[in-house]
Amino acid sequence: MSFSNSIQETVAAALAEDLGPGDVTCEYFVVAEQSGHGRIVARQSGVAAGVEVAAEAFCQVDPALRVEVLLPSGSPVRAGDAVLTMTGRVRSILTAERVALNFLQRLSGVATLTRRFVEAAVGARILDTRKTTPGLRVLEKAAVRAGGGSNHRFGLFDMVLVKDNHLAATDDLGFLRAAIARLRAERPNVRVELEADTLEQVRGFLTLAGVDVILLDNMSPETMREAVALGAGRVRFEASGGVNLQTVGAIAATGVDFISVGALTHSAPALDFSLDLDRTAP
Amino acid sequence: MSFSNSIQETVAAALAEDLGPGDVTCEYFVVAEQSGHGRIVARQSGVAAGVEVAAEAFCQVDPALRVEVLLPSGSPVRAGDAVLTMTGRVRSILTAERVALNFLQRLSGVATLTRRFVEAAVGARILDTRKTTPGLRVLEKAAVRAGGGSNHRFGLFDMVLVKDNHLAATDDLGFLRAAIARLRAERPNVRVELEADTLEQVRGFLTLAGVDVILLDNMSPETMREAVALGAGRVRFEASGGVNLQTVGAIAATGVDFISVGALTHSAPALDFSLDLDRTAP
Amino acid sequence: MSFSNSIQETVAAALAEDLGPGDVTCEYFVVAEQSGHGRIVARQSGVAAGVEVAAEAFCQVDPALRVEVLLPSGSPVRAGDAVLTMTGRVRSILTAERVALNFLQRLSGVATLTRRFVEAAVGARILDTRKTTPGLRVLEKAAVRAGGGSNHRFGLFDMVLVKDNHLAATDDLGFLRAAIARLRAERPNVRVELEADTLEQVRGFLTLAGVDVILLDNMSPETMREAVALGAGRVRFEASGGVNLQTVGAIAATGVDFISVGALTHSAPALDFSLDLDRTAP
Amino acid sequence: MSFSNSIQETVAAALAEDLGPGDVTCEYFVVAEQSGHGRIVARQSGVAAGVEVAAEAFCQVDPALRVEVLLPSGSPVRAGDAVLTMTGRVRSILTAERVALNFLQRLSGVATLTRRFVEAAVGARILDTRKTTPGLRVLEKAAVRAGGGSNHRFGLFDMVLVKDNHLAATDDLGFLRAAIARLRAERPNVRVELEADTLEQVRGFLTLAGVDVILLDNMSPETMREAVALGAGRVRFEASGGVNLQTVGAIAATGVDFISVGALTHSAPALDFSLDLDRTAP
Amino acid sequence: MSFSNSIQETVAAALAEDLGPGDVTCEYFVVAEQSGHGRIVARQSGVAAGVEVAAEAFCQVDPALRVEVLLPSGSPVRAGDAVLTMTGRVRSILTAERVALNFLQRLSGVATLTRRFVEAAVGARILDTRKTTPGLRVLEKAAVRAGGGSNHRFGLFDMVLVKDNHLAATDDLGFLRAAIARLRAERPNVRVELEADTLEQVRGFLTLAGVDVILLDNMSPETMREAVALGAGRVRFEASGGVNLQTVGAIAATGVDFISVGALTHSAPALDFSLDLDRTAP
Amino acid sequence: MSFSNSIQETVAAALAEDLGPGDVTCEYFVVAEQSGHGRIVARQSGVAAGVEVAAEAFCQVDPALRVEVLLPSGSPVRAGDAVLTMTGRVRSILTAERVALNFLQRLSGVATLTRRFVEAAVGARILDTRKTTPGLRVLEKAAVRAGGGSNHRFGLFDMVLVKDNHLAATDDLGFLRAAIARLRAERPNVRVELEADTLEQVRGFLTLAGVDVILLDNMSPETMREAVALGAGRVRFEASGGVNLQTVGAIAATGVDFISVGALTHSAPALDFSLDLDRTAP
Repeated sequence: MSFSNSIQETVAAALAEDLGPGDVTCEYFVVAEQSGHGRIVARQSGVAAGVEVAAEAFCQVDPALRVEVLLPSGSPVRAGDAVLTMTGRVRSILTAERVALNFLQRLSGVATLTRRFVEAAVGARILDTRKTTPGLRVLEKAAVRAGGGSNHRFGLFDMVLVKDNHLAATDDLGFLRAAIARLRAERPNVRVELEADTLEQVRGFLTLAGVDVILLDNMSPETMREAVALGAGRVRFEASGGVNLQTVGAIAATGVDFISVGALTHSAPALDFSLDLDRTAP
Repeated sequence: MSFSNSIQETVAAALAEDLGPGDVTCEYFVVAEQSGHGRIVARQSGVAAGVEVAAEAFCQVDPALRVEVLLPSGSPVRAGDAVLTMTGRVRSILTAERVALNFLQRLSGVATLTRRFVEAAVGARILDTRKTTPGLRVLEKAAVRAGGGSNHRFGLFDMVLVKDNHLAATDDLGFLRAAIARLRAERPNVRVELEADTLEQVRGFLTLAGVDVILLDNMSPETMREAVALGAGRVRFEASGGVNLQTVGAIAATGVDFISVGALTHSAPALDFSLDLDRTAP
Repeated sequence: MSFSNSIQETVAAALAEDLGPGDVTCEYFVVAEQSGHGRIVARQSGVAAGVEVAAEAFCQVDPALRVEVLLPSGSPVRAGDAVLTMTGRVRSILTAERVALNFLQRLSGVATLTRRFVEAAVGARILDTRKTTPGLRVLEKAAVRAGGGSNHRFGLFDMVLVKDNHLAATDDLGFLRAAIARLRAERPNVRVELEADTLEQVRGFLTLAGVDVILLDNMSPETMREAVALGAGRVRFEASGGVNLQTVGAIAATGVDFISVGALTHSAPALDFSLDLDRTAP
Repeated sequence: MSFSNSIQETVAAALAEDLGPGDVTCEYFVVAEQSGHGRIVARQSGVAAGVEVAAEAFCQVDPALRVEVLLPSGSPVRAGDAVLTMTGRVRSILTAERVALNFLQRLSGVATLTRRFVEAAVGARILDTRKTTPGLRVLEKAAVRAGGGSNHRFGLFDMVLVKDNHLAATDDLGFLRAAIARLRAERPNVRVELEADTLEQVRGFLTLAGVDVILLDNMSPETMREAVALGAGRVRFEASGGVNLQTVGAIAATGVDFISVGALTHSAPALDFSLDLDRTAP
Repeated sequence: MSFSNSIQETVAAALAEDLGPGDVTCEYFVVAEQSGHGRIVARQSGVAAGVEVAAEAFCQVDPALRVEVLLPSGSPVRAGDAVLTMTGRVRSILTAERVALNFLQRLSGVATLTRRFVEAAVGARILDTRKTTPGLRVLEKAAVRAGGGSNHRFGLFDMVLVKDNHLAATDDLGFLRAAIARLRAERPNVRVELEADTLEQVRGFLTLAGVDVILLDNMSPETMREAVALGAGRVRFEASGGVNLQTVGAIAATGVDFISVGALTHSAPALDFSLDLDRTAP
Repeated sequence: MSFSNSIQETVAAALAEDLGPGDVTCEYFVVAEQSGHGRIVARQSGVAAGVEVAAEAFCQVDPALRVEVLLPSGSPVRAGDAVLTMTGRVRSILTAERVALNFLQRLSGVATLTRRFVEAAVGARILDTRKTTPGLRVLEKAAVRAGGGSNHRFGLFDMVLVKDNHLAATDDLGFLRAAIARLRAERPNVRVELEADTLEQVRGFLTLAGVDVILLDNMSPETMREAVALGAGRVRFEASGGVNLQTVGAIAATGVDFISVGALTHSAPALDFSLDLDRTAP
């Protein structure tokens, strides 16, 4: 499947980046025939994500490894929990270790931070953004879902989001009306979102047919509340700007449908995991 | 050049990920002929990195854009400083914006965090690790240098680092001696580093010929100091484990040569940048 | 831009397929220094599409060719009209000729057939399907727009379309309601379309929240008309099955919003074009 | 093998095009564990081709599917005949369905049209041309063979075909003689074909050594007959231009060896196939 | 053009192989702004080949270099002759140097050895084989032509060569006759060559229609002469096996049309070239 | 693993190069169901290398072949020794044959020549260079190790080697000292080698801290001996230039640590192997 294909190719590229012309440490310092059993263990509490990606790394390095996922992506983990085990050649386990952990720690970091926002934003959905790591967007958006969040558009291709920079004059409703009509004719299934910085703009956008969502950018909770009231259920509202774990609850209480948080993917600290390895008798 | 090739391919992949079958917002909501001038401006203080990568994103989307780097990677920036400007079709500027910012904010985050560690670790060099973002290692290691740090090995291929997991019995000096000798014969130019968890191990490793660096893992500053004294200048020492901005100064004071910090690349928060756009008269 | 990137890669692959280890005819039978001027001329009436793709083929074979688009994609053409001219080395023009024409004749065939359906379907929009040529979907969907048609989803990723094969029991409204709710939570911006084979199903689907479009598959015009009346403007309707140039007018008259036509891309005959070449004095 | 490798890569690209970041319908609307049995059934009579390619699509999406080819490429099919069956996860079957059908309907369309020309052209071989779908040439040429036709050259690299556009002056036999001699010396195993528009040209070409085939372009049957008589068995003749199912019989009767038909690959309508799916008890 | 495309990709891969994450010597030991002028000079006499490939390496590393070919492929060179010059950044020249020389020395080695065989084989053409360097076949076959030799088939796809291993029983003329007939019908433009180890086989093959060439494998010159006489001009003959610079003249004198020599590409010693570099005043 | 990944991709590219759109000889002249058993046999004495690469070629063409390595890379072979056997479809064995042999004959040639140099250079290690075949460097360096030699750097990225062309004035020790210091700070684990043409330079280089190896280029044995004495064990010495099987013993006797030999990879003649094939009863 394309989605798991994408995982396969992303993992293959990460392994090529790390191994280059070969793992010189394993070649000289690990006996070729030695077998063992490894466990990847969380060293912090959080939400696991990318477990299947980490498993793929071990499988690609050595298809003969037996790899078992104990806690699939989306599972809460506590320090000490094993999420993944593998059995087979020690060389293969050690060669894949770092790449597997690099995916796991980053994606679990994203899921863990998402979960914290979700818990703090009662009544509204937490959305990711396009502020993702280049090359890892599909994986990071899956990690956001693993953490209980929702996915905004996947790229520039699957939804319209008109920001102030897109419009020569942001109050030109005639231009917007014509552009939306043309879009509706040629791409009837693409949703349309418009960014508003003021209530004035919100009022204007509400006169347009074919708008699905209005983005309230950097507004105070009071202003957002007014905007939501103006909408009267005809469109959905997304809040962005100045969102953090302290403010997100108050923003959710304004009645917006969605709150988008760039930090989910651009500033989540890694969740710590490590590999425990036991050698089996030869 | 391969290095900039690598930039080119990484940027091309990031653009393909974001644009997919096309930027539907620009196609319908930005007039094709409109020209403008954009500036990428820092919104926080720190160290810029990835500026040339961001420039490449604009150039790939539209080779006709005039792109100018104002503050090259490695420059300190303050909130409000412009690092990059571009002039040309508004559509092209907006289509490339997010990918350019995604590289810039992440790599500048790495450089900024590195700079803070470097300033706190007087007398020792700050090293990165292999705990990098899959697919971005070369760029992240360049960002570490931009922040004043040093590069550890680039992958499993360009240096030996023997950790406890590599050895069936970590005190088997005979095995180590033989393996190092074989490596020295076949790969004479590859450096060798051994991980030690105890002073006992350090003493053993110091009896081996051909060891370049000993990694002191998770030792107290006192123990590190003793290890350094045992070494008596014959090998270099790297400290790792439990390193943060609070502890790094004391670790540096033990006399180790290097301190490696995984957080530089796995947990650096993004440095905030945004695009200011002015339209020129048609 | 990704869209034109995609053109570049598709054209490069087509050239590699045709040229393999080299154009042996030009190498031995065309004098290397000879220059000339070529015109690609329509030999049938229709709608041009893929003109820019054909231009790209000439540019890739020889960046020194001067290539000019006379009639951009979307233009009506009559037999004898030139759509594209190129000036430069005769060898380069002849080496690129066939690949350029292969794109042009196929995509113009799609646009031309689309235009005929659009003209016959007054009051409804003509949609394409996913029954496209493997590898050419983005180009064929652009050709559909060039012919005045509209684009349905680009793939399995950008819209939900639930067909009878997807559901264990097509009348299980409870399952559908739960699945749509889960989708709405995790992917709020993805549109949902359900396929109905009977009016009974249409009635059921109209009780579900979150349905954007109902697909009326293989229904008679009378049944479609009833379905549209049931909808009462709450959802949009798409007709499919048994659509041809004879029936499309009657289907449009039922009041459906969209009519999807697989033949636009899977069975459009090529529109004939050829290359006229004049050699310039040496 | 390269040929089936090529199939693998072409199928993988087609799946990536369709699935993008994932099949959102199956993810939310098909229960993950559900198994089933599918049959791809012809809905029109014709000649099957691309059956193995369709099978490959199912296998790539899910290697655990059991896929069986019932009627291999080249088999005549009637409406209702099953050509391919697959058993396993319903999600996998539905995700692969469209890509498999897209290959099958197009390639079977090519084989079916070829068969009709072959049956109408008694005494001459039907040849394909380079007017193929970009990216699918090897598959379409296999479909032509499946329909009983013959393959002309695969590209610009494996045979010389000199058309009027290649020659500055088409009656310059001295230039042709020298070029053929040079080709014969350097590439002795490459066949040479020359395009003739008049009997005058045919007479000239017959004076040249090293010509394997003469292409009679857009000649009347009477003129072709004269040309064949002039050849007296020393070269072979190919007819092209104005060939359709009405004219091909008369052209074959002129005694030409080959008749090339661009429509086989550029204008064959798709042959209709569909998927029947039965769910197995859980 | 595909041929030069192929050069571009082959050169790009070679540069990536050599540069990896970057040229660390130039980065630290060559001043960034320094300009210079380089000349690639032959240090042995022979025939130049791959000069344009070497030029491409310099251009890819730095499009701003001015690169000039002084002696194109096919030119005889003497020790001291410059074949290529380049002017621009010293860093770029030195980074590309080795890759450029690696192509040049190998391909010129092939051309030089070919020339020696050609000069020794009066009356017969020297052919290459498929015993080429993996990945470099198109370039090595061009080098053979540069040395005055002829190209045998480019791969398994563009000509039939039936060796003893292909046939269950090498004297089964009936099987061969049927197979050739089937091939002639489906692939009329593919040439057919049969390998013969004895005169008996030659006699049998001469009874078959549709054979273009007979390969005389490991026969004595006397036997070859007899075979050629048997052929009486109806087919062409190729000699292979036991061919070296001492024996090739006698083999040519037997009247065979072609002599194929694997050593041209599998055992040609490199022709020595080096780079002379002058720095320009800053 | 990346190393064997690299083998996989290199083999796949070589197969694609040879097979193109398919093996036409096997398709028409080998019965599809025929099975057989093949052995690859050395026809000359030497050292085997690339045996596993050859095995990979057979496996890629047909995963159903049973392939067994009898003599792994590094084994001495005598004429008549079988290194590899394969059992299965005859078509698959013959389609893979040439590509497998091309790798095997070239890499075994490298290993065999290396072995001869190693035996002649008592007391010094034989090093390879970067004068390798474009695209095959990792495989050729493995062949050098198989022959008993040592690997110099793998590319421009994993070690510094400063040659005369890198320095504006070769006697500028101040510049060198500063550059080495900067490198040591930023890339502490990269080794540094400097090329010396005179004893004067050697003396200067010995005053610099941080130099690992001095390359003695084109010096007489007497001069080398003096240089080694000057070094007094503080650095290692590599000899290059004018090294052949006649001179290498005397060079080794000077006390240098390493002798690098470009001819190992750029001029090793192929070691001859061939395939013996037995058909099994049907």
